[in-house]
Amino acid sequence: MNPPDERLAQQIDFLLAVDQLKQVYRKTKLIADGRWENDAEHSWHLALMAVILREYAAEDVDIARVLAMHLIHDLVEIDVGDTFAYDDAGQADRAQRERVAAKRIFGLLPADQGVALLDLWEEFEARATPDARYAAALDRLHPMLLNYHTGDSAWLRHGIRRPQVVAFNRHIEDGAPELWTFARQLIDAAVAEGKLKS
Amino acid sequence: MNPPDERLAQQIDFLLAVDQLKQVYRKTKLIADGRWENDAEHSWHLALMAVILREYAAEDVDIARVLAMHLIHDLVEIDVGDTFAYDDAGQADRAQRERVAAKRIFGLLPADQGVALLDLWEEFEARATPDARYAAALDRLHPMLLNYHTGDSAWLRHGIRRPQVVAFNRHIEDGAPELWTFARQLIDAAVAEGKLKS
Repeated sequence: MNPPDERLAQQIDFLLAVDQLKQVYRKTKLIADGRWENDAEHSWHLALMAVILREYAAEDVDIARVLAMHLIHDLVEIDVGDTFAYDDAGQADRAQRERVAAKRIFGLLPADQGVALLDLWEEFEARATPDARYAAALDRLHPMLLNYHTGDSAWLRHGIRRPQVVAFNRHIEDGAPELWTFARQLIDAAVAEGKLKS
Repeated sequence: MNPPDERLAQQIDFLLAVDQLKQVYRKTKLIADGRWENDAEHSWHLALMAVILREYAAEDVDIARVLAMHLIHDLVEIDVGDTFAYDDAGQADRAQRERVAAKRIFGLLPADQGVALLDLWEEFEARATPDARYAAALDRLHPMLLNYHTGDSAWLRHGIRRPQVVAFNRHIEDGAPELWTFARQLIDAAVAEGKLKS
């Protein structure tokens, strides 16, 4: 059953299609449970982080735009899956694969909304603005927090070493310098406690 | 490992504690999968609905406040669980049980943030403002959409009938009248297709 109004029908179709984000599993686990986290849960947690940690943004941000970025940033993974941060081969053509997916998924919406969300997603990916840099900083801090606090570190499981973690996450500093200070403390502690190889 | 700064330490503790929302399961299932939906996934989906369907809000809304409401609205269920919409006994003392939970969970935050989020949660619960009425309308529309589109309707499973669904969801009209029109079409279709008893 579709709404008779064509615009609303497209919007509802999009909202039904993105239900699949709940089935895209990541490389991190939940803190209190052994199961893998999925992208919908990650996106919710990230957006809530943005609300709580807003005072640490490097520059003034439009929090509504930051939240919208977080809510949509992983929708492309419905088509292309989660690319592990330290999978160099996968990362090489990630942007290209994700752009194709973004055009399909945002293309389900009425044209004005689809274009606006595609632009917002590209802004996030490019870290081109203060909003995008703050949003992207949290997208890096979130899995670091889970890796540190779950018993089962993705770093150890995949043989990731400290210099890789520092290099991959360093742009946290551009979006939220104090959170990068915290992230470095977390990395130090992870190494000291055997959760990350030096 | 806690950040040395006490304020940030409280904020991180809160963000780690709410990871448990990913383990609070609801009475609805995912569209393409048989498994139960959890509150974190629901909260993400709801917030994205708020972005996409904003033009149907009954009055002008501050979308950042609406999104923050959606991101926090179910945190109380970490302590008290999901109360089924049509469980009259559970609904009777739900508000009281949830208020105790809200004080504990938002109390993990620095006092200024904790008070602000407790107020926002109470505004949502009371549907006291245009922001809250729009946010609450989507919180009702979302499970209706899933119930209609999953093969396994919670309505049939629990012997819920059309007048109960209409009564429980009628306040969608206060927050988004055109979405209530759509919801009534959905209810009609559900009855016609045997997904809901008349």
